[in-house]
Amino acid sequence: MSNLSDNEFLTSLRTVLGDELVLTGDRVPEKAISDASQTGRNLPQVYVRPRSVKDISETLKICNVYRRPVVVQGGMTGLSGGANPQKGDVAISMELIAGVEDIDTAAGTMTVLSGTVLEQAQKEAERAGFLLPIDLGARGSCHIGGNLATNAGGIRVITHGMARDNVLGLEVVLADGTVISSLNHMLKNNTGYDLKQLFIGSEGTLGIITRAVVKLKPLPSVQATALCGLNSYDNVVSLLRHAKRSLSGLSAFEVMWEPFFRFSRQGEGHNFFEVDYSFTVIVEQSGESTDLEAFLESMFEEGLISDALIAQSEMQREAFWKVREGRALRALTDRLSFDISLPIRVLDVYVQEVSATLVTAFPGVHISVFGHVADNNIHLYVSTGNDDPSTKERVTTIVYERVRQHRGSISAEHGIGLLKRDYLSYSRNADELELMRLIKKTLDPNQILNPGKVI
Amino acid sequence: MSNLSDNEFLTSLRTVLGDELVLTGDRVPEKAISDASQTGRNLPQVYVRPRSVKDISETLKICNVYRRPVVVQGGMTGLSGGANPQKGDVAISMELIAGVEDIDTAAGTMTVLSGTVLEQAQKEAERAGFLLPIDLGARGSCHIGGNLATNAGGIRVITHGMARDNVLGLEVVLADGTVISSLNHMLKNNTGYDLKQLFIGSEGTLGIITRAVVKLKPLPSVQATALCGLNSYDNVVSLLRHAKRSLSGLSAFEVMWEPFFRFSRQGEGHNFFEVDYSFTVIVEQSGESTDLEAFLESMFEEGLISDALIAQSEMQREAFWKVREGRALRALTDRLSFDISLPIRVLDVYVQEVSATLVTAFPGVHISVFGHVADNNIHLYVSTGNDDPSTKERVTTIVYERVRQHRGSISAEHGIGLLKRDYLSYSRNADELELMRLIKKTLDPNQILNPGKVI
Ligand SMILES: Cc1cc2nc3c(=O)[nH]c(=O)nc-3n(C[C@H](O)[C@H](O)[C@H](O)COP(=O)(O)OP(=O)(O)OC[C@H]3O[C@@H](n4cnc5c(N)ncnc54)[C@H](O)[C@@H]3O)c2cc1C
Ligand SMILES: Cc1cc2nc3c(=O)[nH]c(=O)nc-3n(C[C@H](O)[C@H](O)[C@H](O)COP(=O)(O)OP(=O)(O)OC[C@H]3O[C@@H](n4cnc5c(N)ncnc54)[C@H](O)[C@@H]3O)c2cc1C
Repeated sequence: MSNLSDNEFLTSLRTVLGDELVLTGDRVPEKAISDASQTGRNLPQVYVRPRSVKDISETLKICNVYRRPVVVQGGMTGLSGGANPQKGDVAISMELIAGVEDIDTAAGTMTVLSGTVLEQAQKEAERAGFLLPIDLGARGSCHIGGNLATNAGGIRVITHGMARDNVLGLEVVLADGTVISSLNHMLKNNTGYDLKQLFIGSEGTLGIITRAVVKLKPLPSVQATALCGLNSYDNVVSLLRHAKRSLSGLSAFEVMWEPFFRFSRQGEGHNFFEVDYSFTVIVEQSGESTDLEAFLESMFEEGLISDALIAQSEMQREAFWKVREGRALRALTDRLSFDISLPIRVLDVYVQEVSATLVTAFPGVHISVFGHVADNNIHLYVSTGNDDPSTKERVTTIVYERVRQHRGSISAEHGIGLLKRDYLSYSRNADELELMRLIKKTLDPNQILNPGKVI
Repeated sequence: MSNLSDNEFLTSLRTVLGDELVLTGDRVPEKAISDASQTGRNLPQVYVRPRSVKDISETLKICNVYRRPVVVQGGMTGLSGGANPQKGDVAISMELIAGVEDIDTAAGTMTVLSGTVLEQAQKEAERAGFLLPIDLGARGSCHIGGNLATNAGGIRVITHGMARDNVLGLEVVLADGTVISSLNHMLKNNTGYDLKQLFIGSEGTLGIITRAVVKLKPLPSVQATALCGLNSYDNVVSLLRHAKRSLSGLSAFEVMWEPFFRFSRQGEGHNFFEVDYSFTVIVEQSGESTDLEAFLESMFEEGLISDALIAQSEMQREAFWKVREGRALRALTDRLSFDISLPIRVLDVYVQEVSATLVTAFPGVHISVFGHVADNNIHLYVSTGNDDPSTKERVTTIVYERVRQHRGSISAEHGIGLLKRDYLSYSRNADELELMRLIKKTLDPNQILNPGKVI
């Protein structure tokens, strides 16, 4: 793009939004470089901080006329590079489009602006006596809008489903600036196409999400959390089956493979058990009452669990969860993270196969595995100690090749973004990709929205 | 269309499918005229009975080349005229595309052809020890494909959500004959756009659904059903709140307003209670054990319910449900049926307002109201004894005008089809309609799929 039209473009933006919302050069903040995958390398050329939906609409109108590529930036906690700027991008930061607009306590719904940090929305729901059913480790930074744009999963999927399942209505700005307000509040509404579904999970490539109506759930009065040690994957699967049947209000079932558990608990400075079991599982129950202790006793008697701790305080509960969140992994700066779905019965077989192949190819490799096993979803972290591109590609191919063989998904919840785009065909066929491209072309004919991401 | 190209078109179809699958004239069956709304007036010009997905693909290819409008016909139980042929339509009957192909007992999934009758799929799931979570009164005739095309609701939404929420994968044939096979089996799969969402609920206007992967749930070992008499709508709302909190496995909460209950129970020849209460509610619990009796006793003590019967046999349970299904309404041949969503707190206010207006406009009018109140959804049947078009239009406008005022939905679960098309703007705004049209045009550029339906 010529300097002339560059200047024109900036002048248009500044005229409409005002100088202080259109940052360039030194004024672009460092945080705009990368999401939590830490793979971003470029500052955006322009950093726009819209204060209203109208600002977003005007910004897109101008970008569309000038054919300027746009990257939407939410809380920057994504793990697929979706919010990373590419050279020349205009970044649109959603952080000022924030706030809970309404909680309807009779209907149990919340209307919320998309730049609202998840944890803040959760707290406001709680104050009104409700549970906001979306929850994940990044709650302190991620945005509701980012959660919906990536169709986030998290630790409540077992009870409440994915982000998608908790949305009633959505407001979206299209590439040409049109605001589609589809802020339905009804649980059931079969009046024509369910447009919101297109935008949820499309990672900012079809439109910018500005508002949502989300379902709220009753706040559970009791929560009980246990950390359990198990000796085999068969036992993990049996424990899950029993928990689903007998424990009313099973609200989390998070499994940690031994190498990860040991690595992470050491990082946090905890022991918990006398030995490290092959599998450590967090079992959480939320509801009106708890029978977790009796349940665990019977599982112990059946020989399914070898040891268990029930959290005696909120602090202890948090200690369990901190280990699961795995902050210690951040020390492995070359780590590659994978987010994989496979049938539950092959999950551990898969981990064994891939670990064996990786260990042969990269002696001394670190492999951490944990995840939402009840939803068929594990996260795999691999660190070879070597972060050149060809090593990364070899690791990635090993990990994904077996996913393809087992007909699983290379992205259960983190999305495709930039990092997995070239592997999309491992989980989707050519006709599906063609149809995705057609939809993209229809909604964003000038390809300005997150170009090169997802497809 | 000229006779010449008409002949060519038929010859092409017959060459590809064989004579016995392409029926015209006297060989077109009567049942092809109308769905259960009984508003269809035309036989299709051609009636195609494809035996395979390939047959469907070939049929659409030819129809697309010859620009012949197609109507997809499932079980013909729809209530919005969506499967009714318009003059000159080619009807594609789905009834031979039937059968359960696979039940994966480890994963809890079923792969099923779309022409399979719902009840047959339910039975096969049960034989394998599972519950198929979609259920509605029309189970004996409606197809899985019709359920997904209309995003059917039904009596299990309270636990399992709408049809949409129970689908993992879908296979669809597009207008030009392309088969999009998106038969995902994973609970979580964020690899690009969730294409199936576009087709679910699009009532045959974007593609023909041929196969689906649906989630199965554990079969409950106990089911308990009660019929309760209540004196006020406030009591209904309180009973629901208590049931949601205290009754684990609440699986149905169906409310019948007094005039409907009396009309329907008389039609079935039942008494049940000594008096007819203002509201009669079916409360059903499914799970591992039941505490329904104790729950109802405490509700009785709190003064929320005035009387209750717990079904002592499957026969008695069925008797309750038959009254709810309201077969007696069929005697009112001029009846208009409505399927409305409104916030739960205004549902009864709405019924009172609309009833008052209707009674003033049409003295002696019959108004039956019942529905899935837990999902904010009621069905309203109106019979004025007069079925001329202007009366129908007046009734419809009265019913929908108040829905618009309360910002509700004119179709909670039955879809738009032909009958509600002209009222779609009561629940969706101009920008939403424009986007729907754009999607329709993109996927079906020659407008051959159910043209004139929905939008
Ligand atoms: C510690 C940690 C734990 C995590 N745990 C989970 C987990 O359990 N489950 C899970 O699913 N993910 C998890 N994630 C990943 C990440 O938090 C989620 O994907 C989150 O939903 C991203 O939200 P965000 O606002 O940070 O989005 P960003 O990273 O800013 O953006 C993500 C993508 O969405 C787009 N986008 C953002 N906002 C909008 C908008 N308003 N409109 C349109 N497009 C938009 C961006 O362009 C980008 O493509 C975790 C991340 C971390 C760091
Ligand atoms: C007694 C009774 C009770 C009912 N109860 C409920 C209820 O509780 N909840 C509810 O939601 N509905 C209910 N309905 C309405 C109806 O049964 C549902 O809408 C059902 O899902 C329609 O299925 P079908 O196979 O009969 O579809 P059809 O009537 O044949 O078709 C419905 C629409 O879907 C399209 N279609 C059908 N098959 C396909 C396909 N394979 N691919 C693409 N498009 C297709 C048709 O073109 C049409 O537009 C009830 C109906 C009756 C008669």
